[in-house]
Amino acid sequence: MRLAVIPGDGIGPEVIAEALKVLGEVVPAAEITRYDLGAARWHATGELLPESVLGELRQHDAILLGAVGDPSVPSGILERGLLLRLRFELDHHVNLRPARLYPGVRSPLADPPEIDMVVVREGTEGPYAGNGGLLRKDTPHEIATEVSLNTSFGVERVVRDAFARASARTRRHLTLVHKTNVLTHAGSLWSRVVEEVSLQHPDVTVAYQHVDAATIHMVTDPGRYDVIVTDNLFGDILTDLAAAVTGGIGLAASGNLDVTRRNPSMFEPVHGSAPDIAGQGIADPTAAVLSVALLLDHLGEHEASRRIEASVAFDLATRDHQSPGATYAIGDRLAALVSSNVRTG
Amino acid sequence: MRLAVIPGDGIGPEVIAEALKVLGEVVPAAEITRYDLGAARWHATGELLPESVLGELRQHDAILLGAVGDPSVPSGILERGLLLRLRFELDHHVNLRPARLYPGVRSPLADPPEIDMVVVREGTEGPYAGNGGLLRKDTPHEIATEVSLNTSFGVERVVRDAFARASARTRRHLTLVHKTNVLTHAGSLWSRVVEEVSLQHPDVTVAYQHVDAATIHMVTDPGRYDVIVTDNLFGDILTDLAAAVTGGIGLAASGNLDVTRRNPSMFEPVHGSAPDIAGQGIADPTAAVLSVALLLDHLGEHEASRRIEASVAFDLATRDHQSPGATYAIGDRLAALVSSNVRTG
Ligand SMILES: CC(C)[C@H](C(=O)O)[C@@H](O)C(=O)O
Ligand SMILES: CC(C)[C@H](C(=O)O)[C@@H](O)C(=O)O
Repeated sequence: MRLAVIPGDGIGPEVIAEALKVLGEVVPAAEITRYDLGAARWHATGELLPESVLGELRQHDAILLGAVGDPSVPSGILERGLLLRLRFELDHHVNLRPARLYPGVRSPLADPPEIDMVVVREGTEGPYAGNGGLLRKDTPHEIATEVSLNTSFGVERVVRDAFARASARTRRHLTLVHKTNVLTHAGSLWSRVVEEVSLQHPDVTVAYQHVDAATIHMVTDPGRYDVIVTDNLFGDILTDLAAAVTGGIGLAASGNLDVTRRNPSMFEPVHGSAPDIAGQGIADPTAAVLSVALLLDHLGEHEASRRIEASVAFDLATRDHQSPGATYAIGDRLAALVSSNVRTG
Repeated sequence: MRLAVIPGDGIGPEVIAEALKVLGEVVPAAEITRYDLGAARWHATGELLPESVLGELRQHDAILLGAVGDPSVPSGILERGLLLRLRFELDHHVNLRPARLYPGVRSPLADPPEIDMVVVREGTEGPYAGNGGLLRKDTPHEIATEVSLNTSFGVERVVRDAFARASARTRRHLTLVHKTNVLTHAGSLWSRVVEEVSLQHPDVTVAYQHVDAATIHMVTDPGRYDVIVTDNLFGDILTDLAAAVTGGIGLAASGNLDVTRRNPSMFEPVHGSAPDIAGQGIADPTAAVLSVALLLDHLGEHEASRRIEASVAFDLATRDHQSPGATYAIGDRLAALVSSNVRTG
């Protein structure tokens, strides 16, 4: 197993160290190559993602990324030039974001139900296409545009993936989230594709919700969701909200998948680089560890993945959430749980 | 005071009847003209918003709208052809949506702080411009686009309005919500405009949040918001979420304002036509009544507006939220409170 690791900025390297500690317990033979991409490199060399590095990344089975972003870098530079560029160049069309309320974890909701959903967010088009511009900048006649691009090809592959995932789950329920009553063109395409693909999945029940209504249900009735399929921007918004109601982005893992496996998929915690707490050793590495579980599952190491997730679940059920411990201590605990699990499991 | 009333579909007419009952207590001389627009008219005549009706609507001081929408009408027809057409034709650039957690109202949050915010949502451009299309429809090469249009003119007027509102409030805090790190063109315009206008408002503190992060804080720390200014689509999403954490869209009022007063502004509850409970007389008319309060405030009837809001606040603090009463009973109660308030106030 050849893994490329991009620790990144802020708390990225801190949580990645623990994630690799845990990985070492289940796949000790994994070959790790580190790539220093992010704010520091940009400041030092002006480089974001050199072609040669991109070429090397492609030679790996998967990529593990900590977080990129720093207040010293103007907004958009690292996001568009590094993170989104990786997602687009490596055709990460399925942005997979599970949201589960683990026993023991406190939700901000008064009366949280069981929550166990997966959001399948489209990852390579929509309003993220980067298509737009400025006309007559800095004049009273300025116009700024952003074009959401949605293709039959792009929508269909992610909808198919979402149906397959729904089909493999217990509840077999899929919700399309969009804003079809206003974004009528893109909404029409998404609706038609979901309708067509649903014909091949009579086992999956299908619902539709407008994105605004979905945010309401995410706080009043999140238990209703099983698999959600949605576009890149709505998925960005909904997955942060889903993470919030299930205990925070400190616990949220994600996978950027090329499900054709032509390119390595990339796994990352949903939290950012959190510069405010960086360097203090207090970041929670749980989301990074759960991202390793997603990575292993994607590479077919289902048993190892399951073991890590079970260890996280055990730790969350038993940890003192007021003082969960330092970053390294949580990593040690999870590594120990995983390894005892290896012995007994 | 000449008011145009569009009761609309579903529970629209039910809640409007109570809103007018309450209005009658404070402005008995209001001249009301009803317009039957919505699903029934569309089915009967194919008409959505005839030019002649639009012309008549323009002759009024304000418009009160119940709700439009019915499952029998394909998605998008009434929204784009009637509701959004009204907002665009009448240049309703400031979509004003207060969200307050009234004492006595149960929030879905476990530990809600004091919440008292106003979202100033841009209402006439952004992704709502209706600019987009389908190419190669129903082929494997189909492309659907949606173009977000943002103009210096359009952004500046709503940002100015938001600063003025923030300036008049106790906390004087304004948060711009956008997604500047991905939607870099529109994000750049919004950021620059906020920065420029802020120079004229040194009394207002300014913060920025990405829309995904804003949904997190809306459930973990909603007390932080005072005035939020944001684009049409982010505003749509955030105001439903803000309504949810403050007790639901059954209580959320809104105003679609042309702050230049060249066109009549339009006031409507944020909830839709709720066909599932229509005709049963159980819809909560509170949001419609609060919309009347916004209407009166806009027309300079501050005292009458304040009286209605105080009556609603009193009723919410004292009502049995398990069984708040039938639609007409809530209306009766609010009308009685307002009128006793008139006598004593
Ligand atoms: C950092 C940003 C570009 C990114 C996104 O918008 O996709 C982040 O919010 C995420 O969800 O991974
Ligand atoms: C019905 C729909 C067109 C409308 C919108 O998206 O603006 C509604 O959700 C609202 O917020 O008033």
